[in-house]
Amino acid sequence: MSRTPGRGDADDGERERPRVAALVPAAGRGERLAASVPKAMHLVAGEPMLVHSVRTLAASKVDLIVVAAPPALVLEVEQVLERCHQGAQLLVVAGGDSRSQSVRNALAVLPDSVEIVLVHDAARPLVPRVLVDSVVDAVSAGAEAVVPGLPMADTAKEVDAMGRVVRTLDREKLRLIQTPQGFRRDLLDAANAGGASEGDATDDAGHVERLGKHVLVVQGSAEAFKVTAPWDLRLAEALLAQRHLVG
Amino acid sequence: MSRTPGRGDADDGERERPRVAALVPAAGRGERLAASVPKAMHLVAGEPMLVHSVRTLAASKVDLIVVAAPPALVLEVEQVLERCHQGAQLLVVAGGDSRSQSVRNALAVLPDSVEIVLVHDAARPLVPRVLVDSVVDAVSAGAEAVVPGLPMADTAKEVDAMGRVVRTLDREKLRLIQTPQGFRRDLLDAANAGGASEGDATDDAGHVERLGKHVLVVQGSAEAFKVTAPWDLRLAEALLAQRHLVG
Repeated sequence: MSRTPGRGDADDGERERPRVAALVPAAGRGERLAASVPKAMHLVAGEPMLVHSVRTLAASKVDLIVVAAPPALVLEVEQVLERCHQGAQLLVVAGGDSRSQSVRNALAVLPDSVEIVLVHDAARPLVPRVLVDSVVDAVSAGAEAVVPGLPMADTAKEVDAMGRVVRTLDREKLRLIQTPQGFRRDLLDAANAGGASEGDATDDAGHVERLGKHVLVVQGSAEAFKVTAPWDLRLAEALLAQRHLVG
Repeated sequence: MSRTPGRGDADDGERERPRVAALVPAAGRGERLAASVPKAMHLVAGEPMLVHSVRTLAASKVDLIVVAAPPALVLEVEQVLERCHQGAQLLVVAGGDSRSQSVRNALAVLPDSVEIVLVHDAARPLVPRVLVDSVVDAVSAGAEAVVPGLPMADTAKEVDAMGRVVRTLDREKLRLIQTPQGFRRDLLDAANAGGASEGDATDDAGHVERLGKHVLVVQGSAEAFKVTAPWDLRLAEALLAQRHLVG
């Protein structure tokens, strides 16, 4: 195996000048999973969640994957991912204290050739390749910022501190937002240069909205659900087991 | 098998004077599933979704289950459910053209002894018994209206007609609402007597909110997810297969 694996069908020039990068902040601890293991390293069907995500990103239109790992685990994460990123280059950097800092650390190592940047939660291990490609395609087609979103199956209500309903939302207008989120590289740089600590830290598009830029929602995928609690791990396991039975 | 099955440990008086009823509107067609079959009759792990829900409701603190079926299928639904409702009485009535009308048809047949009414989506086949009981308990303890809710794992954004983000919501205050929703019987009667066709027809608590009454949110369950698309059926199958492997 080559030390700098790239697309088998790409020439060296393309490999070394990646145009599409995916950042994967994976330095966080899953508070609702066993806290002794970084969240992205929790096993799903025998492999760390991070491996599932990286394998899918590598099979997509992404040319370069930058993983932000817990600083003490950079070498270990590199070893775990060594055989999983055929189709894309891989860099593993030390993550920061916050997700936003991890994104900035990953942005900092991008070569100049990168024009499109995706940010993907390692905790969405079953994200389909076609979803990754549709985000890349939407940015390539001219959108400044793109997020996958799903309509809500459930009614959404706002509650007060006592758990009483304050109001019911119009769910027709709402979308549940997933990752990967995709950006023109200059816009993500600008969004992370200032006030990136404001708002919902897991929502990179939010920073872009605060710059007054348009964010486009494309069709998400149920399979891109986020693993936050033990039940979600069970769900991911069950779906992967079924994939293997069917496939 | 008895023609009027009830709780094995209850005397005839209790059986005939149910205090807690669960209404299950099951007359709708699943637009995103095969439209030739009523949604509630779609098979999950070899049994109609409705069977899974009714079996769980019968094992809970519910005394009487009233299913609103497609009018042409009342007899068939009765036969399908005959062996699944041990622990509770069962009535099958003809549903209406809308979900609201089905709820009203089911309300109309409740005996006077009923004080607490739950409304449950047949399309949430994996709802856990403990969730049903917690809704009953909350109403028994004095709440007028109770809905199960889950915090959102994903960011929620409001979009315009072009699919562009208008704003990002504060998800800390939001809950995704499930069923069964539970009500003091007189309140649900009052809510359905007037403007029940307004608003989100799948949200019975919404009618109660419009009466200016308090709705309490209790902890929901990931397993109570709603089946709307083929992927959800796959998910339900996978989870039930795993339950059987584990159990």
